[in-house]
Amino acid sequence: MFKSQIGVIGAGACDERVSRIAEAVGREIAKRGALLVCGGLGGVMEAAARGAKEEGGTTLGILPGSSRDAANRYIDIAVLSAMGHARNVLIAQSCDALIAVDGEYGTLSEIAHALKMGKPVVLLESQWEIKGAHVAHDPAGAVEMAFGLI
Amino acid sequence: MFKSQIGVIGAGACDERVSRIAEAVGREIAKRGALLVCGGLGGVMEAAARGAKEEGGTTLGILPGSSRDAANRYIDIAVLSAMGHARNVLIAQSCDALIAVDGEYGTLSEIAHALKMGKPVVLLESQWEIKGAHVAHDPAGAVEMAFGLI
Amino acid sequence: MFKSQIGVIGAGACDERVSRIAEAVGREIAKRGALLVCGGLGGVMEAAARGAKEEGGTTLGILPGSSRDAANRYIDIAVLSAMGHARNVLIAQSCDALIAVDGEYGTLSEIAHALKMGKPVVLLESQWEIKGAHVAHDPAGAVEMAFGLI
Amino acid sequence: MFKSQIGVIGAGACDERVSRIAEAVGREIAKRGALLVCGGLGGVMEAAARGAKEEGGTTLGILPGSSRDAANRYIDIAVLSAMGHARNVLIAQSCDALIAVDGEYGTLSEIAHALKMGKPVVLLESQWEIKGAHVAHDPAGAVEMAFGLI
Repeated sequence: MFKSQIGVIGAGACDERVSRIAEAVGREIAKRGALLVCGGLGGVMEAAARGAKEEGGTTLGILPGSSRDAANRYIDIAVLSAMGHARNVLIAQSCDALIAVDGEYGTLSEIAHALKMGKPVVLLESQWEIKGAHVAHDPAGAVEMAFGLI
Repeated sequence: MFKSQIGVIGAGACDERVSRIAEAVGREIAKRGALLVCGGLGGVMEAAARGAKEEGGTTLGILPGSSRDAANRYIDIAVLSAMGHARNVLIAQSCDALIAVDGEYGTLSEIAHALKMGKPVVLLESQWEIKGAHVAHDPAGAVEMAFGLI
Repeated sequence: MFKSQIGVIGAGACDERVSRIAEAVGREIAKRGALLVCGGLGGVMEAAARGAKEEGGTTLGILPGSSRDAANRYIDIAVLSAMGHARNVLIAQSCDALIAVDGEYGTLSEIAHALKMGKPVVLLESQWEIKGAHVAHDPAGAVEMAFGLI
Repeated sequence: MFKSQIGVIGAGACDERVSRIAEAVGREIAKRGALLVCGGLGGVMEAAARGAKEEGGTTLGILPGSSRDAANRYIDIAVLSAMGHARNVLIAQSCDALIAVDGEYGTLSEIAHALKMGKPVVLLESQWEIKGAHVAHDPAGAVEMAFGLI
């Protein structure tokens, strides 16, 4: 079993700058030998998975729908929830720690679920300030913080 | 069918002051003939359901577990999700509008899911400030706002 | 709270004969003061809900999708799961006993979930023979059997 | 991405004979380069995962609970659903084909969900006879049949 399963959460569409940050987060997670978990779609999810694959890592995408075709091409293993928003709960539950990169309401729901479950959450480029979540200032720092909090 | 299904969300334990607010919210919802939806447990959920019953309303509790015994005694109809935190998604999805009274991480997850689904959210006594959610200052105002936003 | 919550499960489309049987089952459930739980759509679900309403009963529909418009017009309270097939688990979990009228694979999944949960299941006009499920030969007998097994 | 994701479903406890059959099924799946998906617990799930690991395969366990400690030691990647019986739906949904080895009510629910989703189901040592499900007589034949039906 992978010793750690780390989630990277964020919006399904993002600009180039946020994409580069998510990619760097994915690379750092793979370098440490952890499984990268994400929602399997585009934007931050795709950038993080791409980063993990660049470092030879393994990626798990937990998708909202019922088709593997919806997964981005950096996903190794696809869990098809066909449960829409409830897949956010599955992501939070399946990770030892979560790193949120930017993000909108969907990301906020995952942050809240993870905190409710008592899991470490690290925020990067977040619009939200949430009691109990940790704030990082760069990808390497976020990943180091996440592993330190497990 | 009930013309409207209104959710009251909040923590499973709360002080007397918050309880009175939640009860008043439940009463206002029942007065308008809507179904009160909540998580079916204690605290804000129980107070809101009690308020609705005082006005002759009907209450639906969507519970996290698998036993009807866990429901508070003001719940008319119990949906047993046995899905833990994912029941929060069911609550958000099943309501036309949600009113959050105080609340912690579980409530925050419901607010986020509801906003993601495009449903109106009204905050009362909230520690969170969330773009897109509306802030009310008293129970009657919160319920009026919720109905106005449907 | 309703003292009993009884599920009527079956296909979303059915012929006139099966429809009349489901309607009679719904009537008998309402006569006994129990809540009728179903999947909220057409066919057996609609017929059972119609029967319950004819006797002044109350009906809960747990729907697979996210829109109340999909509910048949005899549903009083709609739970919108937006979880597709997983809503079948919610139906089984929320009932004290289930009565299957005819039915296809979806119904079979509900029967299996209910038996796994240790809940009484009564089959009427079923193509399946399943160890542990009880077989009834008419609507009144099925409902009497279900209440007797709770 | 794995070209195929094949589920092996069956009871959480089984005798030595059924265990050897499930292990052989797991080996055959891994030999063909597919991901083995299972419920992550003991019995048939553990035997199938052990077989896949013997051939250097990769295993995904979709668990009913919230703790990775509940996974058997042959699981590489654990999805923690914390959704109880609804995790059966996730297993069916995430596979291209499913092979049921023996099995009780939980297995029957997965078979029914998979058939409802239009996915190929192969039965080995099954107590059930279900229209639409295919019957195999040995592990290699079951796996060949499953791949042929995708």
